[in-house]
Amino acid sequence: MVGERAVSSGGDGLDELETPCLLLDADRLKANVDGMRARLDGLGVTLRPHLKTAKSLAVARVAMAQASGPATVSTLREAEYFAEGGVRDMIYAVGIAPQKLDRVGAIRRRWGADLAIVLDSIVQADAVAAWGQRTGDTLPVLIEVDGDGHRSGVGPHDGERLVGIGRALAPGAALRGVLLHAGDSYGLHDPAALRDAAEAERAAAVAAASILRAAGLPCPVVSVGSTPTARYAERLDGVTEMRAGVFMIGDLFQAGVGSCAVADIALTVLATVIGHQREKGWIITDAGWMALSRDRGTAAQSVDQGYGVVCDRAGRPLRDLIVRGANQEHGILAVRQGSTATLPDLPIGTRLRILPNHACATGAQHDRYHVVADGKHTGEIWPRINGW
Amino acid sequence: MVGERAVSSGGDGLDELETPCLLLDADRLKANVDGMRARLDGLGVTLRPHLKTAKSLAVARVAMAQASGPATVSTLREAEYFAEGGVRDMIYAVGIAPQKLDRVGAIRRRWGADLAIVLDSIVQADAVAAWGQRTGDTLPVLIEVDGDGHRSGVGPHDGERLVGIGRALAPGAALRGVLLHAGDSYGLHDPAALRDAAEAERAAAVAAASILRAAGLPCPVVSVGSTPTARYAERLDGVTEMRAGVFMIGDLFQAGVGSCAVADIALTVLATVIGHQREKGWIITDAGWMALSRDRGTAAQSVDQGYGVVCDRAGRPLRDLIVRGANQEHGILAVRQGSTATLPDLPIGTRLRILPNHACATGAQHDRYHVVADGKHTGEIWPRINGW
Repeated sequence: MVGERAVSSGGDGLDELETPCLLLDADRLKANVDGMRARLDGLGVTLRPHLKTAKSLAVARVAMAQASGPATVSTLREAEYFAEGGVRDMIYAVGIAPQKLDRVGAIRRRWGADLAIVLDSIVQADAVAAWGQRTGDTLPVLIEVDGDGHRSGVGPHDGERLVGIGRALAPGAALRGVLLHAGDSYGLHDPAALRDAAEAERAAAVAAASILRAAGLPCPVVSVGSTPTARYAERLDGVTEMRAGVFMIGDLFQAGVGSCAVADIALTVLATVIGHQREKGWIITDAGWMALSRDRGTAAQSVDQGYGVVCDRAGRPLRDLIVRGANQEHGILAVRQGSTATLPDLPIGTRLRILPNHACATGAQHDRYHVVADGKHTGEIWPRINGW
Repeated sequence: MVGERAVSSGGDGLDELETPCLLLDADRLKANVDGMRARLDGLGVTLRPHLKTAKSLAVARVAMAQASGPATVSTLREAEYFAEGGVRDMIYAVGIAPQKLDRVGAIRRRWGADLAIVLDSIVQADAVAAWGQRTGDTLPVLIEVDGDGHRSGVGPHDGERLVGIGRALAPGAALRGVLLHAGDSYGLHDPAALRDAAEAERAAAVAAASILRAAGLPCPVVSVGSTPTARYAERLDGVTEMRAGVFMIGDLFQAGVGSCAVADIALTVLATVIGHQREKGWIITDAGWMALSRDRGTAAQSVDQGYGVVCDRAGRPLRDLIVRGANQEHGILAVRQGSTATLPDLPIGTRLRILPNHACATGAQHDRYHVVADGKHTGEIWPRINGW
């Protein structure tokens, strides 16, 4: 009969918590931010952290240079929340829908926030310029440039469209610069290829900026950003700022890319063992995909981490134990296929911590972080937001 | 130049909404519930709807026979929320962690709720019995039975464990019956195989109940449930109740199984076009995986629906247009691979509706439903909860 020995608490304060819940290691968060800031200082660019990973004012205050920013957001709900919390310098880094301009204007007015927007078409530029003429609010605009073909943006050498957009903006809106996101870097893992991706992102940004400037258009801001390229860039000449977000927390996917080590990951999901299927080598927990997210990004990497890597309550990975399957409120733990590790004895009631595949997705399943520092639950709760 | 023609509103009230957001078709919801209730009435079993899909009191009131239940929940947060809303007869259908017993007891006391729990081990039974002896609250308990090997539960013919658990419960707790979930039916799509799965679930439930009764233990409740088996069961002799949840809303995954038609799906994500990459055949929207969820359940089915099927604002699918890729706040629409359909002209600002892969997962990304009835947005908001 297993499952009858006492479940040790270890004085870490985790027994007070209901599971599943999110734990955020404040020491790792700070180290990740300090490391990135030192790196970018050395490269001579400003860090404009993307706040979409954590969506938490407390985390933002660790990540930002000052309480007022600069920062990047992915939704207008984030812009409102962070503006209410004192952030004044933000880019809403998703192509603008004309229907959202009134809300952008309201955020700028209500909080006196310098909230800039992003677009990549003349249709949008015309709409923004007309809106600015009508309201008298001259919106700062960055043109999204597509350096690696992964999503939105104007080609970096498409002078006709770049200049066309730049000209369409005046006088109702103010061209502030160009913005790129090297999303294709997420598919890499070789350091040389990552260095090349960072250089390609830089070169594309500088090329687009040069085209605008040669046409007599202003381009004070040259904004690039992704966690892998931020980690691997060797030079950033011509770039003014780096937007990266997930670096501050890290996750198994970024560890697979090479952007962080597993030991850097600041986020875990606290779970409780609720059952066993011993013949199958399964341990069942109360952290299913609702707590972990449906993200299976590591499935396409060289090491598939299932729905996450299982750690003991101190955050130390248990040898080759992963979340092999997940239902809504059930996680199925098993030893990684091909491993010779044996299933550990984890009685019902045991507390475990799961390292997530994707910090942005896992975070979004929760409304708060429980803070861990010096290996102990501090009792602090850092709220986070979701929604639009 | 495309994108300049007017974006028609059609008087459907959808222009008032910020995107992305969830739309719930109240007519389809009601029809889905009525259809299931008629089906189960014919089979002589009670519907105990699983409220984990919608997590909304307004939806629950459509799905439940009475305002007091019966109902099924997947978290204690749901139990609290629904109890506050008047639901009194609930099963918390995830194996109990001993640490959660005090919270279960508090819900039973505070709202006078008949909240039953589930377990599948003697360790849990001992803990529940001891808790009951200590507190004086005799918890109703269902033994989870594993009919198809997909997750938790005692084997349906494992008399030693079934009876051992049943005996361990007395006198601190009260054995109420057995509970199964035919999770493996989710991997099927052939009607004959689905009928077999339903019969296997029924037979396993009845077998386990018979073992308990033969040992002199009570087993008034024989609870089975999954949307596919609820849809395909031909007889349910010996079963007292059916727990199914996603049937009320439906999704592309269930359509792939054959549990519903695409035209029955009551949930869509309203999105706005924010860009184009015409050379690639891409349309970009503001509904990325944050709005749709990371669920890719249809990837393993015969028709891979990407991150969802794209419909016009009236909810009619656009020919072979799916969400081919998703970043956090960007959806990339493209024609399904191999299709001869042409990319429709959808100017910036166009409103679209996306049918989700998995209603439970997509719903969880949101905190409210905007109600549509008779093809129009009614202005009603039905809140939903998340968290634990």
